[in-house]
Amino acid sequence: MRTVIAGPSPGSRRFAESLAATMGARLVVVEHKVFPDGERYVRIPDPLESEVVIVQTLSPPQDSSIIEALLLADAAEGQGAESLTLTAPYMAYSRQDRRFLPGEPVSIAAIMKAFASAGYTRLITIEIHKEETLRYYPGEAFSLSPYRYMAERLRDKLPPNPIVLAPDLGALRRAREMAEALGVEYDYLVKHRDRVTGEITIEPKELDAAGRDVIIVDDIISTGGTIARAASLLLANGARSVIVVVAHALLAGNAVEKLERAGVQKVYAANTLPPKGSGLVEYVDVAPLVGDLLARVNAEA
Amino acid sequence: MRTVIAGPSPGSRRFAESLAATMGARLVVVEHKVFPDGERYVRIPDPLESEVVIVQTLSPPQDSSIIEALLLADAAEGQGAESLTLTAPYMAYSRQDRRFLPGEPVSIAAIMKAFASAGYTRLITIEIHKEETLRYYPGEAFSLSPYRYMAERLRDKLPPNPIVLAPDLGALRRAREMAEALGVEYDYLVKHRDRVTGEITIEPKELDAAGRDVIIVDDIISTGGTIARAASLLLANGARSVIVVVAHALLAGNAVEKLERAGVQKVYAANTLPPKGSGLVEYVDVAPLVGDLLARVNAEA
Repeated sequence: MRTVIAGPSPGSRRFAESLAATMGARLVVVEHKVFPDGERYVRIPDPLESEVVIVQTLSPPQDSSIIEALLLADAAEGQGAESLTLTAPYMAYSRQDRRFLPGEPVSIAAIMKAFASAGYTRLITIEIHKEETLRYYPGEAFSLSPYRYMAERLRDKLPPNPIVLAPDLGALRRAREMAEALGVEYDYLVKHRDRVTGEITIEPKELDAAGRDVIIVDDIISTGGTIARAASLLLANGARSVIVVVAHALLAGNAVEKLERAGVQKVYAANTLPPKGSGLVEYVDVAPLVGDLLARVNAEA
Repeated sequence: MRTVIAGPSPGSRRFAESLAATMGARLVVVEHKVFPDGERYVRIPDPLESEVVIVQTLSPPQDSSIIEALLLADAAEGQGAESLTLTAPYMAYSRQDRRFLPGEPVSIAAIMKAFASAGYTRLITIEIHKEETLRYYPGEAFSLSPYRYMAERLRDKLPPNPIVLAPDLGALRRAREMAEALGVEYDYLVKHRDRVTGEITIEPKELDAAGRDVIIVDDIISTGGTIARAASLLLANGARSVIVVVAHALLAGNAVEKLERAGVQKVYAANTLPPKGSGLVEYVDVAPLVGDLLARVNAEA
């Protein structure tokens, strides 16, 4: 009997509950508090069997979520765990994946090294910013792409014959996965600046968005600026509607208002981060994807 | 030529400046910011020689200070550092130094493991809560006791013939170091509860505090509750004045007000944490202690 541990970071508990149900595993919920001086406290109340999956998404405050994950590994070892998998549905710091300037850290490598040395022999995340980043993990590491799964779950809620657009060429794989699952066309957006007027337009590279229902697919909405700009220009140029599908709805600051003002009709996000109390965002539970991966990995072992 | 790097956590820069001056080392100040989503960014702007001392005290927000220390190690390696010393004048999480209940982490061990795996081969702190804790560090680790040094620096500001008191038997070593440097008497405080009235008194075990100027010495003031209680009971029982000397003035929440209300005349603290803008607290720069240690360690090598 395996155990799934629900870590204390916002968004972890629901994900862990769903994962435990998928796996038929026991769920243990971590006790936690913050001391008056700001230090975090965690406790795993039950003795553990050898194989343990800790669910701790790296939601804001990201640094505290990371520290709690380190503390949980120590606590789990103290309770008898021998093999530790960290499931961090949202992997913070994954966008600092190289030294853009000399003297910068490869932040994601530093964080991954800390997790491995804490005793996590396996790391599972959802849609890390760049898949190559997984090579920084000194153990087994997996990033699960959620778009096909989300397409299946959302099929009935989406407009009948949409086009699926990536915000740029780098994100095209994401749009393709979503579009193939839906059986519709996909493309990526290109920015044009008019040489005379200086006016900026954003258009699909090949397809025509005029009169079409558009689904923009990306890995993350952080402050929402890029997607809001794309949505409002697409609508100004005749798109009928814009829906957004992302893995991670971080929605920092006033991102929700920005997207609403831009005319975005709906945001569908995986449940890798705690839900924002806004009618704009709907969540798709992707914990079963992690359950499937663990079943496959164990079947192979 | 060695390099001292001033990390971004509150309180690190002044400590690093003083340490660099003591060592005759070059000072490099880290560039840093917080992204809109809450992630931290650091950058070490200059190429480094082989030997580097990073000063990053683990001041609140502690978890972010820890993460920044991990990122700095990666950045320093990228800039050519080969030997990395972490000077963390205040070591957060050092009070969770064992499993008080089953299922708790040994938090300080988890944090120390992360620092070692990040590449810090040496750790220097000021007055860690329990010195035995250093054994958790998988490299060279030092905790410097500041009380003798502080006594020398404060001699002229203290009342002429005080008694030095530890808040409990466990802290007696701290009072003894201070008292021996000042050439005065020391003792520790004991709590009595009157069996009939239930009244609590706090008195020195052997000495009489009545009519005396008292110096309470401890490692840390966190919320200030324990020391405020001791001070007000000592004053109620006839002590002439109460001064407090600590390594770490964390002063969480309304600690300053609590101590002022209790009648504490002054708090002298080492500069391991950022200064509180309050007339109650005065700081003693203990960075030269770290410089002396590094000179000794290098002389031996």
